[in-house]
Amino acid sequence: MTEVLIIGGAGMIGRKLAERLAKDGTVAGRKIDRLVLQDIVEPTAPAGAPFATKSIAGDFSVPGLTDELVQSRPDVIFHLAAIVSGEAEADFDKGYRINLDGTRLLLESIRQIGQGYKPRLVFTSSIAVFGAPFPDAIHDEFFTTPLTSYGTQKAICELLLADYSRKGFVDGIGIRLPTICVRPGKPNKAASGFFSGIIREPLNGEAAILPVDRDVRHWHASPRAAVGFLLHAAGIDLAKVGPRRNLTMPGISVTVAEQIEALRKVAGEAAVKLIREVPDETIRGIVAGWSRNFDPARALEFGFKPDSSFEEIIRIYQQDELGK
Amino acid sequence: MTEVLIIGGAGMIGRKLAERLAKDGTVAGRKIDRLVLQDIVEPTAPAGAPFATKSIAGDFSVPGLTDELVQSRPDVIFHLAAIVSGEAEADFDKGYRINLDGTRLLLESIRQIGQGYKPRLVFTSSIAVFGAPFPDAIHDEFFTTPLTSYGTQKAICELLLADYSRKGFVDGIGIRLPTICVRPGKPNKAASGFFSGIIREPLNGEAAILPVDRDVRHWHASPRAAVGFLLHAAGIDLAKVGPRRNLTMPGISVTVAEQIEALRKVAGEAAVKLIREVPDETIRGIVAGWSRNFDPARALEFGFKPDSSFEEIIRIYQQDELGK
Repeated sequence: MTEVLIIGGAGMIGRKLAERLAKDGTVAGRKIDRLVLQDIVEPTAPAGAPFATKSIAGDFSVPGLTDELVQSRPDVIFHLAAIVSGEAEADFDKGYRINLDGTRLLLESIRQIGQGYKPRLVFTSSIAVFGAPFPDAIHDEFFTTPLTSYGTQKAICELLLADYSRKGFVDGIGIRLPTICVRPGKPNKAASGFFSGIIREPLNGEAAILPVDRDVRHWHASPRAAVGFLLHAAGIDLAKVGPRRNLTMPGISVTVAEQIEALRKVAGEAAVKLIREVPDETIRGIVAGWSRNFDPARALEFGFKPDSSFEEIIRIYQQDELGK
Repeated sequence: MTEVLIIGGAGMIGRKLAERLAKDGTVAGRKIDRLVLQDIVEPTAPAGAPFATKSIAGDFSVPGLTDELVQSRPDVIFHLAAIVSGEAEADFDKGYRINLDGTRLLLESIRQIGQGYKPRLVFTSSIAVFGAPFPDAIHDEFFTTPLTSYGTQKAICELLLADYSRKGFVDGIGIRLPTICVRPGKPNKAASGFFSGIIREPLNGEAAILPVDRDVRHWHASPRAAVGFLLHAAGIDLAKVGPRRNLTMPGISVTVAEQIEALRKVAGEAAVKLIREVPDETIRGIVAGWSRNFDPARALEFGFKPDSSFEEIIRIYQQDELGK
C-alpha cells in the first residue's frame, strides 16, 4: 500500500506532478495505491489515474489540518504549498503563517505520529534563499542571505527540514527550483513574468513586453524538468546525500538575448518581432538583485537532470501546452 | 532617557556585561538611565551602578513576557538567553521553544509596538550554525548547515533577525561568539568544558583532564572579549553593515598543544603537570565535528576586536577571576 500526498496540489507544478503520477502509476519505483491532493481550493484529481484519489480543500497552516493529512501515513509527501514572493512581502504575517508555520506544523504532525513513521518529504525551496551580491556562479556552499521574507521563510524551512531529518523524524530533501519557464497560462504581474512572457506570447501569436535589458542573465527550468526533479527527489538514496539536505537544482543560465535567439531558432523572425522593449525601472531594479547563474554540482552528482538547452525549454512548452 | 534590556542576564556573559555597563555608565556613547535584567531565575543587579536597575524572573518564551519587557521601549536590547547545545539536543521541544519561539516572540513584541520604535537588538548567535566538513578557515560566505538542533535554532534566528531588520521593524545584529575560554567557575559536563578546564584547574592548583588529542584546534575568545563584542555591536553603524546582519566574531585559533604552551609561559611547568590525558572517545567524536578556524574578515572590518593571543586569554582569567 503506497500513498502519496501533494500539499499545494492545485498549483501549476502540483497539477503537472499529479498528472505525471497518474500516467506513470508509480513513485520511487513503487506502485501507487492512493493519491491525496490538498490545497486552499479543492485540487482537481488527474484524469484516468490507475489509483484512488482524494482532494482536500483547506488551509494547511490552520492547526489540525496537517494532522489530518498525515493520519493515513502517506509514504511520499510533496510539499509545494507557499504564498508567493510578492504576497509574502506585502503581507508579512500571512507569509510567515503559510510559508513558515504551515511547514513547521507539517513537520510536527509527522513527528507526533512516531512509531517508526518516517515518510519521504520533498520540500520545494527556491533560489530566493540567496541574496545579492553573488559570485558569477553560486556554488553549493554559498551562504543564504535572502533579501525577501519569502526567501527567509524558505531558508528557515530548509534548516527545519535538515534538523528533523537528522533527528530521524522525517526523511526530507529540499530542492531549490530555478525560475520555471515557460509558465503556461495568461501573463501575470509577477516581476519575473516577462521571462516566460517573451516566449509564450509570441508562440501564441501575441505581443510581449520586455521590461529589462537583453544582457540580463537568469536561471531557468521547464515545468517538465521541475516535475522530474520532484520525482527524482522522491526516490533518491538520502543516506548518500548526508545531512546537507537542501540542493540547488540544475537549470539553464541564459541571457534574455539568448532566450530570444532560441525563440528565433524555434519559431522564426516573425515570433521575435512580437517582442517590444518597454523598459520598466521597477522591474529592472528587482531583477538586478536576482541570482544569474549556479554551479549545482551536488544535484548533478545525485542524478538530477536539467533541461538540455533553452531551445528544449521552448519545445517542451510547445509539446506540453500547444500539443505540437 | 536611555534604557538597556538584557535578556538572559543571569548567565556568565550577562552578568559580566551588566557589571561592565555599571562600570562604564554608558552604552553606544549614551548615558544609561535604566538597566533591566531578565532571566529564568532572578538576575543579580550589578553593584554600584550609576543608574536604576530592575530584575525580572520569568520564561521569555511564555507569550506575554516579551511584550512586558519591551513595553518601556528599551533603546538597546542584548538577547543572550538560550538553552545550551546539549539540553537542546536532549529536549527537542524545549530547545525550539526557548531558542526559536522565544526569539520570535521578542521580535514580534518589538514589531507590534510600531510607532517608529526600532531598538538596537544584539543577538548572540554561535559558531554552531556551521556543520562539518569545513574548509581550513571558515570564511564569511560559508553556508550554515548545523549538525545540532541548537545550531539550527541559532541559524533560524539569524534569518529572522535579518528579515525583521530589512523590513525596518528592528535594528538587529547577530554576533556568532567563539567558544568562551577561560570560563570561570566549576568544571561542568559540557563536551567543550575541557578547553577551559585544562587552563582553569591548573591555575587554581587542581588537576585537569584532557580527553582529546593535543592537535585538536579550536576557536576561542575570552569573556572580556565577548563583552567587548556585545558593546561594540550596540554602537556600530548598521547602515554600513548592510543586510547581511550576522557576523562571525574574531577569535584565537589554537591547538590544545598551543593552549598548553601558553599555560606553561604564564604559569610554569608545575601548572602544566596538573593536566592528565584521559582519552574519551565520546568527547573526541563530538569535538571532531566542531569548527577549528575562521577568517572573520567582515567583523574585523567593522572594528570588532579579538584577544591578542591565547596567553592574553589566560592573563584575562587571572586578572578578572583571580584578582592577579
